[in-house]
Amino acid sequence: MSGMGDFDDVLTANENYAAAFVDSGLPGQAGKGLAVVTCMDSRIDPLNMLGLAKGDAKIMRNAGGRVTEDVLRTLVLATHLLGVERILIVEHTDCKMATATAEAVHRRIFEASGVDTRSLEFALMDDQLQALAQDVQKVRSSPYLPKGIVVGGFLYDVRTGRLREVL
Amino acid sequence: MSGMGDFDDVLTANENYAAAFVDSGLPGQAGKGLAVVTCMDSRIDPLNMLGLAKGDAKIMRNAGGRVTEDVLRTLVLATHLLGVERILIVEHTDCKMATATAEAVHRRIFEASGVDTRSLEFALMDDQLQALAQDVQKVRSSPYLPKGIVVGGFLYDVRTGRLREVL
Repeated sequence: MSGMGDFDDVLTANENYAAAFVDSGLPGQAGKGLAVVTCMDSRIDPLNMLGLAKGDAKIMRNAGGRVTEDVLRTLVLATHLLGVERILIVEHTDCKMATATAEAVHRRIFEASGVDTRSLEFALMDDQLQALAQDVQKVRSSPYLPKGIVVGGFLYDVRTGRLREVL
Repeated sequence: MSGMGDFDDVLTANENYAAAFVDSGLPGQAGKGLAVVTCMDSRIDPLNMLGLAKGDAKIMRNAGGRVTEDVLRTLVLATHLLGVERILIVEHTDCKMATATAEAVHRRIFEASGVDTRSLEFALMDDQLQALAQDVQKVRSSPYLPKGIVVGGFLYDVRTGRLREVL
């Protein structure tokens, strides 16, 4: 159990959300056949960034927007079962995952907290566009996705709001 | 390269987004110290559901909102480097990942597409609340997260918009 009241602020906000909620009967299918793989970064609002509404797209997010096994598992389900036909993989500017080496991150965490994270693979990016190219190719090469799925690689500028197709 | 024009609709919508974009200079830190782990489901709009704005929270999403290695990796970075102190793990009603056995999903995909996915672990849920309890505990037991992080387990009702704290 979390402590009593630890989440009161968001639960109270949710009461307002629910009070104004209109059930439009949306199914679990992706209405526009889209999936977006992107970073957990708090500055990215995937739906608004792409002019989408609730119901349109499946969203996958992790540190760096990397195509991990978890993302591939999710894409298999999203494409075969939930109507996804187009996949956007979206990196962004000013990404923490592209600005330091794993060694430096492990050291920084250890020095600040005493936690030794060196057994974890952080999937940081030395070269962000190269990492994006690898990730796009990883999706295209997956033997588990349906034929004909469209995959694009994109870069989002957190300072301008602009999305650029790069691959 | 994806085909020319495959993403024209969202790129055009993004031009409008960028045209109206105001750079508020948000940093990469989570302004409200929050992380949300939830499902890719297209009916979930995490920021609005919790009354949050861009900049407030790190968002992690995959099939089922499961706490995978990828999510743990992401939480380690989010807590140690990006200001996250509270983590919400949010399951939802009518989740495809909680309505079928892995065997049935593998069979359904094979019959529809000829793709044999049986070597993949889909992380489906026989018992959604039990899976949520395991996932919450997985985060609490992680030796790689800072001491004092608060973790809660929640269920979101896609028909009413209401979020309930269950763990």
